[in-house]
Amino acid sequence: MEKVYVIGAAMSSFGYYPDRNLVESTRDTAWDAIKSSGIDPREIGFITASHMGRGGTFGQRVFAQLGLSGGTIINCENACASGGTAVYLARMAIASGVCDMAMVIGAEKMTSIQGFIPPDPADYNGATGMVIPAGFAMIARTHMEKYGTTKEQIAMVSVKNHRNGCLNPRSQFKMPLTVEQVLESKIICDPMHVYECCPTSDGSAAVILANEKAAKKYCGKPVEIIASVVLSGAYTDRPDRTMSELSTRVANAAYKEAGVGPEDIDICELHDPFAITELWHYENLGFCKRGEGGRFIEEGKSEIGGQVAVNPSGGLLSKGHPLGATGVAQVAENFWQLRGEAGERQVPNAKIGMAHTMGGPVTGLDAGACSMQILKV
Amino acid sequence: MEKVYVIGAAMSSFGYYPDRNLVESTRDTAWDAIKSSGIDPREIGFITASHMGRGGTFGQRVFAQLGLSGGTIINCENACASGGTAVYLARMAIASGVCDMAMVIGAEKMTSIQGFIPPDPADYNGATGMVIPAGFAMIARTHMEKYGTTKEQIAMVSVKNHRNGCLNPRSQFKMPLTVEQVLESKIICDPMHVYECCPTSDGSAAVILANEKAAKKYCGKPVEIIASVVLSGAYTDRPDRTMSELSTRVANAAYKEAGVGPEDIDICELHDPFAITELWHYENLGFCKRGEGGRFIEEGKSEIGGQVAVNPSGGLLSKGHPLGATGVAQVAENFWQLRGEAGERQVPNAKIGMAHTMGGPVTGLDAGACSMQILKV
Repeated sequence: MEKVYVIGAAMSSFGYYPDRNLVESTRDTAWDAIKSSGIDPREIGFITASHMGRGGTFGQRVFAQLGLSGGTIINCENACASGGTAVYLARMAIASGVCDMAMVIGAEKMTSIQGFIPPDPADYNGATGMVIPAGFAMIARTHMEKYGTTKEQIAMVSVKNHRNGCLNPRSQFKMPLTVEQVLESKIICDPMHVYECCPTSDGSAAVILANEKAAKKYCGKPVEIIASVVLSGAYTDRPDRTMSELSTRVANAAYKEAGVGPEDIDICELHDPFAITELWHYENLGFCKRGEGGRFIEEGKSEIGGQVAVNPSGGLLSKGHPLGATGVAQVAENFWQLRGEAGERQVPNAKIGMAHTMGGPVTGLDAGACSMQILKV
Repeated sequence: MEKVYVIGAAMSSFGYYPDRNLVESTRDTAWDAIKSSGIDPREIGFITASHMGRGGTFGQRVFAQLGLSGGTIINCENACASGGTAVYLARMAIASGVCDMAMVIGAEKMTSIQGFIPPDPADYNGATGMVIPAGFAMIARTHMEKYGTTKEQIAMVSVKNHRNGCLNPRSQFKMPLTVEQVLESKIICDPMHVYECCPTSDGSAAVILANEKAAKKYCGKPVEIIASVVLSGAYTDRPDRTMSELSTRVANAAYKEAGVGPEDIDICELHDPFAITELWHYENLGFCKRGEGGRFIEEGKSEIGGQVAVNPSGGLLSKGHPLGATGVAQVAENFWQLRGEAGERQVPNAKIGMAHTMGGPVTGLDAGACSMQILKV
């Protein structure tokens, strides 16, 4: 198998942009990524497009506008794990020798659709009120009862990610928050406050991948993808609401492939649609033991400069969460961080990074799909 | 690269089934395919799911019901080429050594959604009335004017495919038609009649793919995928409305990969959402010269027993066209035909087969995506 590297990345500003044409803005992001890599775009042999809201031939529509309409373009989806899945497929295409260079685009325009994820009549969890925030509120409540996690500790996740978001020019929010402000904000689903939930977002992201030969030709400091995993689960797999069996299984597979452990990760962009989710994933991904997520955030271990900088970009909570773009933007953030190009939010001496998404079904109890990339400079 | 074989296949009956639960019926089709192959389903290392109507984690929902929820599942889309794209990805996973066996499912429930492909406000073709039937009606009109193709010749495509559909137990229609009946049916978009358009369909299909070692272990008569291609286009690429530049480019790439030519194809399941489309593809895929599609059907060359049996299953026109299922069902039909298991519709001595889909954008002028598999027993 060929080694695979990231050699270019771009993202649009994330936010509330109802007047932005998604195909045109994603075209601009794709072009920014191409320019950042210095490649001849006609050499791109394989393209994956991650987009939930309107699949069909979204990728083809974007690339037709760049005059790059002739190659293999695959539109793929795995709910909120769509972007990570698109990176997985593009890496597989290069690793298996299908092409020398591939491109991944991810995009979503959530402001244009009222009720972005419509209820499925066959979804009994939805029918009984177990929508996503309710599921994560139950996880929070159980974690608090089982491990003594406090509402202040959960709020600290949002405070940290909003602090990081203030340092990221492309973040949806530049809004410093205190624990008190979070806990005084509106309750969405007890014990979860609105400032502990990710926003509705529009935006796009793109990365360029290359095999070793092409990476050496075009890139002075390529970032290798040393592991890429996509696995699935069913919420019934999970014996205990305070853990994501799937995220742990994916992380263990990725650590094995990469030959590293959680103690080696310097920067991690993980899936934080809610503050409790990030705290939960400290444990699921092995950064701390079960039940210690609350102390992990309280002791500053997930801050920039801490044991592992979690969501230095601002994460879904502050940077925003345009579903199809998220996993691609996470890999872009890793690219910038590992190359020392992350500006004010730069994690010092970052050598090994991680991107992690999880998505669907609409139960909040465990994910249907989970993706992970581990990257190294 | 590993050789890749089809070792099992299944499809549901296609038709109008508004009361059928799509996840449950697709689960049953998946299980039928597993049983047909005799494999231990826990050995399936990679799954692709082709579904347009409700992407998200559709594949995960299906496989959770089979207790097979742990592996890599990718939901993919390329409009009407989704099923062929899903086969392409699963073949790539095996060819590159990611897994020994993979499974592809495709499914759609079009009766549950009013206006299955909603208009895109940014689609100027749609806004000006250039919906899919209008685009193909223009192709028909131009073909008639340029080459003298007659409305009777176009109708003959539908007559043939409905005759074949009568022989297929899983076909949506078992309705013999005459040329007169077709031409007396309601005009949808002049010169196109309702009996020259595919129906709204529900249904699912599944195939099991394996590398050489697993194929030999489980299957007495495996069918090799000797070419698999997915390419993209933009309607602006097409210099002449009477040809699909994209389908021709895909066919040429597939012929090259397979080391065969159009004269070697014994059976071809091609994309016939409209009668004119099949006639057009006789030329696009190289079965006859430009402009000779009308004569090709009139002389019976695309009949079972003719030069190349086109759409012996009944095709989209008669078997039905549940979008995500279509490309997978085409590969299933090839599997049965090449193994001599196609019952009353069996093509005599079929050794080499083809599956071809094209899809999106909603212009009818040329496709955004096109897939092809060439198979050999």
